[in-house]
Amino acid sequence: MTSNEAIELLEQFRAGRRSRAEVLQTFQAAPIADLGFAQVDTHRALRKGFPEVIFGAGKSPAQVAQIAAQILVREQRLLITRITSEHVRVLQKKFKHAVHQELARCVTIEKKPLAKRAGIIAVLCAGTSDLPVAEEAAVTAEIMGNRVERVCDVGVAGLHRLLCRLELIQRANVLIVVAGMEGALPSVVAGLVSRPVIAVPTSVGYGASFGGVAALLGMLTSCGSGVTVVNIDNGFGAGYAASQMNALTDLVSP
Amino acid sequence: MTSNEAIELLEQFRAGRRSRAEVLQTFQAAPIADLGFAQVDTHRALRKGFPEVIFGAGKSPAQVAQIAAQILVREQRLLITRITSEHVRVLQKKFKHAVHQELARCVTIEKKPLAKRAGIIAVLCAGTSDLPVAEEAAVTAEIMGNRVERVCDVGVAGLHRLLCRLELIQRANVLIVVAGMEGALPSVVAGLVSRPVIAVPTSVGYGASFGGVAALLGMLTSCGSGVTVVNIDNGFGAGYAASQMNALTDLVSP
Amino acid sequence: MTSNEAIELLEQFRAGRRSRAEVLQTFQAAPIADLGFAQVDTHRALRKGFPEVIFGAGKSPAQVAQIAAQILVREQRLLITRITSEHVRVLQKKFKHAVHQELARCVTIEKKPLAKRAGIIAVLCAGTSDLPVAEEAAVTAEIMGNRVERVCDVGVAGLHRLLCRLELIQRANVLIVVAGMEGALPSVVAGLVSRPVIAVPTSVGYGASFGGVAALLGMLTSCGSGVTVVNIDNGFGAGYAASQMNALTDLVSP
Amino acid sequence: MTSNEAIELLEQFRAGRRSRAEVLQTFQAAPIADLGFAQVDTHRALRKGFPEVIFGAGKSPAQVAQIAAQILVREQRLLITRITSEHVRVLQKKFKHAVHQELARCVTIEKKPLAKRAGIIAVLCAGTSDLPVAEEAAVTAEIMGNRVERVCDVGVAGLHRLLCRLELIQRANVLIVVAGMEGALPSVVAGLVSRPVIAVPTSVGYGASFGGVAALLGMLTSCGSGVTVVNIDNGFGAGYAASQMNALTDLVSP
Amino acid sequence: MTSNEAIELLEQFRAGRRSRAEVLQTFQAAPIADLGFAQVDTHRALRKGFPEVIFGAGKSPAQVAQIAAQILVREQRLLITRITSEHVRVLQKKFKHAVHQELARCVTIEKKPLAKRAGIIAVLCAGTSDLPVAEEAAVTAEIMGNRVERVCDVGVAGLHRLLCRLELIQRANVLIVVAGMEGALPSVVAGLVSRPVIAVPTSVGYGASFGGVAALLGMLTSCGSGVTVVNIDNGFGAGYAASQMNALTDLVSP
Amino acid sequence: MTSNEAIELLEQFRAGRRSRAEVLQTFQAAPIADLGFAQVDTHRALRKGFPEVIFGAGKSPAQVAQIAAQILVREQRLLITRITSEHVRVLQKKFKHAVHQELARCVTIEKKPLAKRAGIIAVLCAGTSDLPVAEEAAVTAEIMGNRVERVCDVGVAGLHRLLCRLELIQRANVLIVVAGMEGALPSVVAGLVSRPVIAVPTSVGYGASFGGVAALLGMLTSCGSGVTVVNIDNGFGAGYAASQMNALTDLVSP
Amino acid sequence: MTSNEAIELLEQFRAGRRSRAEVLQTFQAAPIADLGFAQVDTHRALRKGFPEVIFGAGKSPAQVAQIAAQILVREQRLLITRITSEHVRVLQKKFKHAVHQELARCVTIEKKPLAKRAGIIAVLCAGTSDLPVAEEAAVTAEIMGNRVERVCDVGVAGLHRLLCRLELIQRANVLIVVAGMEGALPSVVAGLVSRPVIAVPTSVGYGASFGGVAALLGMLTSCGSGVTVVNIDNGFGAGYAASQMNALTDLVSP
Amino acid sequence: MTSNEAIELLEQFRAGRRSRAEVLQTFQAAPIADLGFAQVDTHRALRKGFPEVIFGAGKSPAQVAQIAAQILVREQRLLITRITSEHVRVLQKKFKHAVHQELARCVTIEKKPLAKRAGIIAVLCAGTSDLPVAEEAAVTAEIMGNRVERVCDVGVAGLHRLLCRLELIQRANVLIVVAGMEGALPSVVAGLVSRPVIAVPTSVGYGASFGGVAALLGMLTSCGSGVTVVNIDNGFGAGYAASQMNALTDLVSP
Repeated sequence: MTSNEAIELLEQFRAGRRSRAEVLQTFQAAPIADLGFAQVDTHRALRKGFPEVIFGAGKSPAQVAQIAAQILVREQRLLITRITSEHVRVLQKKFKHAVHQELARCVTIEKKPLAKRAGIIAVLCAGTSDLPVAEEAAVTAEIMGNRVERVCDVGVAGLHRLLCRLELIQRANVLIVVAGMEGALPSVVAGLVSRPVIAVPTSVGYGASFGGVAALLGMLTSCGSGVTVVNIDNGFGAGYAASQMNALTDLVSP
Repeated sequence: MTSNEAIELLEQFRAGRRSRAEVLQTFQAAPIADLGFAQVDTHRALRKGFPEVIFGAGKSPAQVAQIAAQILVREQRLLITRITSEHVRVLQKKFKHAVHQELARCVTIEKKPLAKRAGIIAVLCAGTSDLPVAEEAAVTAEIMGNRVERVCDVGVAGLHRLLCRLELIQRANVLIVVAGMEGALPSVVAGLVSRPVIAVPTSVGYGASFGGVAALLGMLTSCGSGVTVVNIDNGFGAGYAASQMNALTDLVSP
Repeated sequence: MTSNEAIELLEQFRAGRRSRAEVLQTFQAAPIADLGFAQVDTHRALRKGFPEVIFGAGKSPAQVAQIAAQILVREQRLLITRITSEHVRVLQKKFKHAVHQELARCVTIEKKPLAKRAGIIAVLCAGTSDLPVAEEAAVTAEIMGNRVERVCDVGVAGLHRLLCRLELIQRANVLIVVAGMEGALPSVVAGLVSRPVIAVPTSVGYGASFGGVAALLGMLTSCGSGVTVVNIDNGFGAGYAASQMNALTDLVSP
Repeated sequence: MTSNEAIELLEQFRAGRRSRAEVLQTFQAAPIADLGFAQVDTHRALRKGFPEVIFGAGKSPAQVAQIAAQILVREQRLLITRITSEHVRVLQKKFKHAVHQELARCVTIEKKPLAKRAGIIAVLCAGTSDLPVAEEAAVTAEIMGNRVERVCDVGVAGLHRLLCRLELIQRANVLIVVAGMEGALPSVVAGLVSRPVIAVPTSVGYGASFGGVAALLGMLTSCGSGVTVVNIDNGFGAGYAASQMNALTDLVSP
Repeated sequence: MTSNEAIELLEQFRAGRRSRAEVLQTFQAAPIADLGFAQVDTHRALRKGFPEVIFGAGKSPAQVAQIAAQILVREQRLLITRITSEHVRVLQKKFKHAVHQELARCVTIEKKPLAKRAGIIAVLCAGTSDLPVAEEAAVTAEIMGNRVERVCDVGVAGLHRLLCRLELIQRANVLIVVAGMEGALPSVVAGLVSRPVIAVPTSVGYGASFGGVAALLGMLTSCGSGVTVVNIDNGFGAGYAASQMNALTDLVSP
Repeated sequence: MTSNEAIELLEQFRAGRRSRAEVLQTFQAAPIADLGFAQVDTHRALRKGFPEVIFGAGKSPAQVAQIAAQILVREQRLLITRITSEHVRVLQKKFKHAVHQELARCVTIEKKPLAKRAGIIAVLCAGTSDLPVAEEAAVTAEIMGNRVERVCDVGVAGLHRLLCRLELIQRANVLIVVAGMEGALPSVVAGLVSRPVIAVPTSVGYGASFGGVAALLGMLTSCGSGVTVVNIDNGFGAGYAASQMNALTDLVSP
Repeated sequence: MTSNEAIELLEQFRAGRRSRAEVLQTFQAAPIADLGFAQVDTHRALRKGFPEVIFGAGKSPAQVAQIAAQILVREQRLLITRITSEHVRVLQKKFKHAVHQELARCVTIEKKPLAKRAGIIAVLCAGTSDLPVAEEAAVTAEIMGNRVERVCDVGVAGLHRLLCRLELIQRANVLIVVAGMEGALPSVVAGLVSRPVIAVPTSVGYGASFGGVAALLGMLTSCGSGVTVVNIDNGFGAGYAASQMNALTDLVSP
Repeated sequence: MTSNEAIELLEQFRAGRRSRAEVLQTFQAAPIADLGFAQVDTHRALRKGFPEVIFGAGKSPAQVAQIAAQILVREQRLLITRITSEHVRVLQKKFKHAVHQELARCVTIEKKPLAKRAGIIAVLCAGTSDLPVAEEAAVTAEIMGNRVERVCDVGVAGLHRLLCRLELIQRANVLIVVAGMEGALPSVVAGLVSRPVIAVPTSVGYGASFGGVAALLGMLTSCGSGVTVVNIDNGFGAGYAASQMNALTDLVSP
């Protein structure tokens, strides 16, 4: 239950459409569900605006399914990242709303999708091989209630490919820029816009790219003001942060 | 001239309070001022919302002063970071509005300060030694038109110091969290809020802190969702990004 | 034969319940058993309080079984770590007391378990994926004569999960804290207790976690006083050290 | 006020030697003293058994003196590490009990020294150049109420130097082993004793010692069971942890 | 004596303007001059097209002067890099043609400058702080017989600064691109031209730039085809290689 | 269409052998072909002298084939690197000119091969295991219109193997030197020639070669003047740069 | 043909047991055999005392067999390292003297073994997992004409295992000491002997052993005088160097 | 007292030229002299063939002088490395035989020099800046009883400088090869000789030489068989090891 949903619940109670018992039960639920192998943070949506996201890697399909079930008791939506086909099989069997986001290696479950914010999050990637990470970012931002526009394969070796998307790039509220190898794209993009740029290094490359380290260092030392960086291949983190930033437009600056 | 200032200029023209010649001259100015040793990007405020910031390190006081003078031809405010006392001496002699932000190692020049946004940017730091970096972030955010609240010395070794500031922490629009050594503070803070958290590793520490690398890696691999990271000791970058994020509240989400 | 068992043997001799020949034979045994490919340190229990632990990785099942047999000639218990299912099959066939500790990837053989100390060793882990390392620590501490309490999935991104275990955490004599990614948990725990905290970095994570290096550096530079660190994924080492510390309670401070 | 001192205070109240007001005032004091640049954790002695230790590096003498004064309002003893001669001058002027531990680069202030535990902490160092780090460990352990024996210059290149101290080494409750270069000493020592060994890598060495990294890695991968490690040059951390371990002998194992 | 000069000598002999003795003496000179502390490679100009360049760092002014004198016995020009003001003082006293290239930290001695090739070598640098390295490259290329055009402060954060120099950039035979921080400029430049691009990382930057490593890795993993890289801050090497490349235009392709 | 081909087209138009419509259509084609997952840079041949090269790794055979088809609409030749046998199968089925360069792990498609330049590019490799990288360089240089001579297994441990190829080595216009392990060969070669030397480190070796890092560092710090370096195993990049350099002989130096 | 064998050939000629033609043919053979993919250094035995050793990794069985055949034309013995079972199969089929040294992962071919030197080379290893590397060293030293004694599993965690082999250790002419993890054994051994100690780090270990880096650094920074080091897992190199050292006893010091 | 000197003493006793008391006193002396801050290993000459060498760095002049005095009670010679001018002043005042080896940064004290072995140790260095390290190696080898020949500035960029010293290089018993930057010289030298080659990387270089790491890695991965390596800048270690190797010629191979 996000805080928006909590507010709605209270208003329904005031309007007499919900009983006091219902409301009490909701808020008295323990903030942790203890599964033995995991302490599910059932309080997270209220505190963070979105329920706990399940990181699939290193968890068995059964464990993932158990945690998912626990969260879906009270939540309308759920994101599970870094999944294998085995996870997908089990989840789709158990949850009818489970959708396999294949390129993004995620499963999304939306019993009731969030309304979308007006402002756009743009997800740019430098090369075709960066697509899975970019897609993880896009899927994350979308399930969290954002409109996303994808711009693919606009690396700096052919500047005109980037420049002919300038209108979109300058219109976006937040930009996620995904790149491997030397990771130069965020610097160039940040020079063109006044909105926050989140740089995502990918492990694409070989030799002295060192599994994404070259791109990571390039992004951290970017000469473009306002660039912030997430971990190598961390599309999820970028999408999550972008959504938090875009959500600031929900606040009306007095 | 920021885009807000450009809009104002055009409105004044429409209202007959500025001549066409004045307007034309402003927009016809070249987007670059060539000083030989530097190509000053006089177009940046229009494009990025804030004039080019001068990175003092590695430039002579005379070079810095020349660039500053060039920018101030058209701009109302200016930030110069990583300065030495020699820079300060020359700048204060030449520019009457020059203010030495000692702890932040910056000079600010504000002929006409920007109006401040309502929403708060909170700058937290883990230890007393992280203060200069935190202050660079705060000064940057302030000159860019934001209200800043500072919370000092709330490292995770004494959690109650952090928790007794919870109200402020949860009220801020954007949080900048500065920490050296193991850099654990952003993870803990990110678990408590739903707003963007910008983590700034500092070079504070010794031995296996490797000049801030331990903190940097800790922040990049943070288990706290929504954390983005800037370069070691890059208080300026954090303040700049935070301001860009906070500026999203200027947009009214339809 | 541990020194406690040696003391008991001598007392039995003094009491006339053992012959001189029996005692002599025990102490005259060579301190090394030479198997060609290995020099089994048969003197270790007397010197270190616990017989040589066999590191299974890189040894064939036959080699492991031979070393185990050699040690069990004189010892009542044995720990074999980092084993494969092939090791397990051979060991369970040969030794009837062999127990497969599956999650911990160990085999334990206890002909006569050690009496347990009163004081508790707490094993905390930050995430579900850290469980195997935590369990290796727990199994090690248990076979060495300690009571262990496990606390799972209490990472710092949801502080309330940790704080609601505070009573147990402050009651333990020694704490083993297992975490991957940024490894922040030991710093927070060390701030809450006055007992020794042993931090165990795990290789859980991706990208800039560099196979546990981020967690390792974070723990080494921890701002929490009294934290000591073992190698990445070294649950065994943590359990062993924790047992040595807890054994200090066997000594009566005058 | 340590918990022992708190217990004594309550007993004095019960015995009528202290007024209720006095007791209340003591416990009602805020757990934080806010100095602006620092949040002094005045609750730490009660929680951790020893008052907050001041890390001098990066703090001005005035800042250190202010924090020290704040702590000494309620505490009987204080440790300040990594100090310069300038710190010493200011502290000795302000606090009459301030003692300069020159080799250890510390200042200690003991209004009323703690009673010493019976069990010994042995501090070994491999070479003469490791002495300052070893001494920092020793001074820390001593002020926290432990007897310390120092063994200097017993590196493994001349094993007889170590072996002729075997009696002491095997008698100690806890061993701190300080070494630079290849850091081999803890492995050898751990093979000879059944008590906890805390390894401290130092930055002594050149070339491929990489400022202590060679020693640190050697200690983390030590084949000696039960070795735990602290940061490079972190004598303080080793002394603190050793004291926490030795304090376990205060508990009587039932 | 370069091979061009050798050819000229032989033609003068054939034309009767030089005696056989003169020619013989020139070619019979030993290919090494042994100064004890140095073996001057007097054969290098013939083999490599330019006399041995003296790396000043780590050599005393007297040593540099001795080597210089030895080379100038037979050569018309000489380059000495990485010099201090002390070197300059001694060299200018001893050699009347010695010119201090202050920004480039070099001394050049040209008794008879080489004729300049028609094709241009362009030296671009990303920021003002990269100037000394760029200038070392330019001075090297010039003394080796090339025309050089310098383009300063055209980093990717303000693309228009670069693009308005496009004509020059596309006209150059060889491009040297100097950049610190994330080192993105060579990738962008390589995308715009069909000529060889030599990337020079500089140690400009802080934190995760690691003294030029970020820029170096970025350049090595550049997505721009045809980029080759030299060592960090190695302006000399870039200028030397650029001259070798430009000299290929001396060959007429049949 | 390379610029040479564009020139020819215009001359044919002037000579009346091509219609205006044909010419217009050619130049009006969009500089990008958008395939969704890729933005094919159809303008590259005109700008860089050779059409976009497809990096096969990380792209599906279908994606590679689609991009290839797109490029071949207007281009006469194409290079696809880092391919698998699956790529080969699909490409050979679809394009009749597709040739599998097995050792080089490339596919080349030449509808009409470029005329070869007179000057030679020499490709040297230090050991037999470096052959695939050397061959990738050679194939790249050949398809771009160069004559290539290969010299294999001339590592510095048997200098006579290298020296007996001295004539060829000194005759080449450009030299590509491929080596793993300590990467010493480029330094030795650069000492023997006056032409550009491109060093290619390979990942051949074990232990402290760290996947080519030892060779890379050795080449970057080479004492041989004029050596430039490409990424580990980047034979393609070396061949491409060598061709760009050799193409300078197409220009007649006035 | 080693130089000893060359001397014998000449003596047989002088004694009339060999024809002049035979001798001439031997010395007139080219110093290189060109196989296209390899330049076999047929001169090496004369120059280095042992024929070229074939490094099997990265070469096909057919390539290895061809090179081997070429060498055996003139040589009596041959060593092939880092082989797979596929190499073994092909080699044993082709060469009847081919012996598979399984543990050492080598094939040796000795048509006529070298006479053995009197002095012993001792090969020590710290743990059972280090055996393959130790055995590679031993096999190499043996085929080069040395007596080898192996001492296994004498790591420093149980010093008595090492000390009870002291007589042998002090009797050896050269010592090869193989160890993974922290690599402390060479330091201890070097403190006990006056003969050369060659340290071989192995990739045995996990976590912070970083594939042998911890051991390598430990050995390079060893406090034991006279320790020299070879690459990680380079048993061959250690055996080769040890043989070169031991061969110095063939020289009679006047 | 070396073992040779011990043998002489015993022979003098047998011959009646020394009293039993004298002999007994010599052998009864403790193997350690405890100076508090140092345990002088007075037994080392007997065990290792040369008395303990004092590493000056990090020790005060007074400490060095005290240790030196202790050693000279029984020894005829002494080496003190890494000294400052302050050390020299104190040592020359106290010991009349103290000689300052300025370039080598050592002090030698030889009351009675050792007789020199016949076989030569060659010390080669690649560049003039490597001289101090080479000289430390040479001085060490000389005081230990060896003849040393120095060959300076023979780096691989001018092979003829090396090749014209071939006779000396092939005549030496042991070769020490000192090089910074890419450290290629040992590989080339090892290809030319059949004697042991000890490679010494130096910290000479800049950028990607990383303080000697590039040279170190190059030497460890050298393709030249028989190369062993010591720590960066460790001239002493190389000289010591070379002397141990050369001393093998003292043994007569039966």
